[in-house]
Amino acid sequence: MSASSLKHIAILGSTGSIGTQTLDIVRRLPEYLRVAAIAAGSNADLVLQQALEFDVKAVGLVNEDSAALLEKRLPKHIEQYAGESSLEMMAVRPDVDIVVVAVAGAIGTRATVAALLAGKTVALATKEVLVAAGEVVVDAAKRGGGRLVPIDSEHSGVFQCLSGAPIETVKKIWLTASGGPFRTWTSEQIDSATVEDALNHPTWRMGRKITVDSATMMNKGLEIIEAKWLFNVSIDQVAVVVHPQSTIHALVQYNDGSLIAQMGTADMRLPIEYALLYPQRIDAKLAQLDILKLGTLNFEAPDEGRFPCLRLAREASIKGGTAPSVMNGANEAAVLRFLEKRLPFVGIAKVVEQALTHHTVLESPSLEQILKADEWARDFVSEAVSA
Amino acid sequence: MSASSLKHIAILGSTGSIGTQTLDIVRRLPEYLRVAAIAAGSNADLVLQQALEFDVKAVGLVNEDSAALLEKRLPKHIEQYAGESSLEMMAVRPDVDIVVVAVAGAIGTRATVAALLAGKTVALATKEVLVAAGEVVVDAAKRGGGRLVPIDSEHSGVFQCLSGAPIETVKKIWLTASGGPFRTWTSEQIDSATVEDALNHPTWRMGRKITVDSATMMNKGLEIIEAKWLFNVSIDQVAVVVHPQSTIHALVQYNDGSLIAQMGTADMRLPIEYALLYPQRIDAKLAQLDILKLGTLNFEAPDEGRFPCLRLAREASIKGGTAPSVMNGANEAAVLRFLEKRLPFVGIAKVVEQALTHHTVLESPSLEQILKADEWARDFVSEAVSA
Repeated sequence: MSASSLKHIAILGSTGSIGTQTLDIVRRLPEYLRVAAIAAGSNADLVLQQALEFDVKAVGLVNEDSAALLEKRLPKHIEQYAGESSLEMMAVRPDVDIVVVAVAGAIGTRATVAALLAGKTVALATKEVLVAAGEVVVDAAKRGGGRLVPIDSEHSGVFQCLSGAPIETVKKIWLTASGGPFRTWTSEQIDSATVEDALNHPTWRMGRKITVDSATMMNKGLEIIEAKWLFNVSIDQVAVVVHPQSTIHALVQYNDGSLIAQMGTADMRLPIEYALLYPQRIDAKLAQLDILKLGTLNFEAPDEGRFPCLRLAREASIKGGTAPSVMNGANEAAVLRFLEKRLPFVGIAKVVEQALTHHTVLESPSLEQILKADEWARDFVSEAVSA
Repeated sequence: MSASSLKHIAILGSTGSIGTQTLDIVRRLPEYLRVAAIAAGSNADLVLQQALEFDVKAVGLVNEDSAALLEKRLPKHIEQYAGESSLEMMAVRPDVDIVVVAVAGAIGTRATVAALLAGKTVALATKEVLVAAGEVVVDAAKRGGGRLVPIDSEHSGVFQCLSGAPIETVKKIWLTASGGPFRTWTSEQIDSATVEDALNHPTWRMGRKITVDSATMMNKGLEIIEAKWLFNVSIDQVAVVVHPQSTIHALVQYNDGSLIAQMGTADMRLPIEYALLYPQRIDAKLAQLDILKLGTLNFEAPDEGRFPCLRLAREASIKGGTAPSVMNGANEAAVLRFLEKRLPFVGIAKVVEQALTHHTVLESPSLEQILKADEWARDFVSEAVSA
């Protein structure tokens, strides 16, 4: 190991699920990875602890009150930033090679664009960034010389299956879906699904928002749009197959009919490690899949009748412009209302479809127009639900 | 398509199963592939027909009588060779880029070595060549600058999964086995297996010898040795998993725990096409796997109790030297006797084990010593069976 192969990373969202798992990978591979900067929302205690353990150069907190509290306790040699702009400050630091983007919403999008314009590698966990602002993000990468690497497990799978193959040789990209907790439920049963039912994911332990997205299958809808932008294919080239065991994460179908699939344990640290070390592969002593105990793997076609979000996402992507941003914003707001028990489960897809119907699509929008469309969609859902 | 990307091939064994399927791929992709030379055993009629259809420059027939018959009918502008040496003549022609080796036995081994020494790419269908003479073959590739590309479907799968990844990043190579017709049979049932039972392969339609090898699982034993030489790994890094559907052909387990798998239809034209066009992937209009109809894939550990050939192959590989050649020669002779109903099914493994026990291993043997060991093993089986 030469010192020059050390990679210095910034983690935006260091206190969340992806952030803490990223730090665990750094902890396991200190010869390969260093944390230069971390940023989070408001958890000053955890940020302080992380800053000290990983001896970071800079920290950022979006919440100004939390930042004020942190300032009193942070050693003076560590730079500190506060407010929304702190994420962008972390993302463009000259001492950072890879920016892990694991924060949702507008701040994640702005930081991603800034990092790519600055020529950084962005390891992207927040799929919403590409869903809402795919064209702007891809354009920023082109202009700034930055590179997007996926952390989402399915997209990491695709990335690994492609392994540098020219995209012209690809016929289709397949993302697997667990099918969520309602895979075997009838439409009538789904009609009365509760929050507890929706949060009971069969294979992955994740945050609440993404778990509900898995139950509606909107998660897979977001992912097909994410794949379209990441791999520069048409939305028709991205397909979904239900695979309840979630062992195979993705498959790439080549022109000649051969399929390459990626599989692994349901552990997000695996795609995180791949994104950070690519193209190296190092044993971080994570639990490995036992092939001899794979047993049975099942595959079935998704049912867009019971899970209309898949169709909505495809339609929004074909409409293009601000439509995916509206869909994403409306979905986030609707999931929030569902978790607050102010909207039934099937109301999520309905209100997203209403938002898309009422929205006048802007073509080739700027980042500001995209973020405005997102806000409009959230307001639309707010009014629709309280009406 | 520029004319320079046309690849010119020689097919050794053009009238056999792999040979005719190779010609079918050329027929489908005339802009990419040309047949410069073909060689076969004794089927003068079919060789003539192939020579005319593909407008070849040269033909060879091993059988001298058939060659004499062909000479009268072959147009004068096509060069003709006769006898065993004709295969080597085809393999080293200056107008040939890729040599498809699809003939068994000593002549296949000599032609492979000659082609590699001449710097050709060898698309190898005959796994026995690498099993018996792996070290000599790999050494010939190194010295002559030739390159080995697998046609065997499992090894083509591994080759595709690796996709240029450094072999140091690989923890294990997994070859799948259908388990053959006796996968679910008890030892007692296998004891009384007939030739008809053994030829009833569940997933692949192949020649008789390889079909019996699948029933004993010696085919997988030969394949782990083949993989060891092709991919430059230790025999301990090559493992077998039983997968009755034969949809996944191989998996590569990387250091970080990620697995890349290759799948496709049970059609040998797919690995043939990949070997000939690599690294290109062109749609040759072969039937494609329908992911949405994959249904169920099963995996289980192989049972070396009921299928001792797997263990014999691993042991022969560890012994090294002439041991794998003896194992391979003894197996071929034993399978022949079984097909003639002169040896019971379970007698195959027994007589192979006896041959290995009686053989005195020569270390770092020459090609001649390897071929002699093979002959010795065939004689040993001959005597053992008639005794």
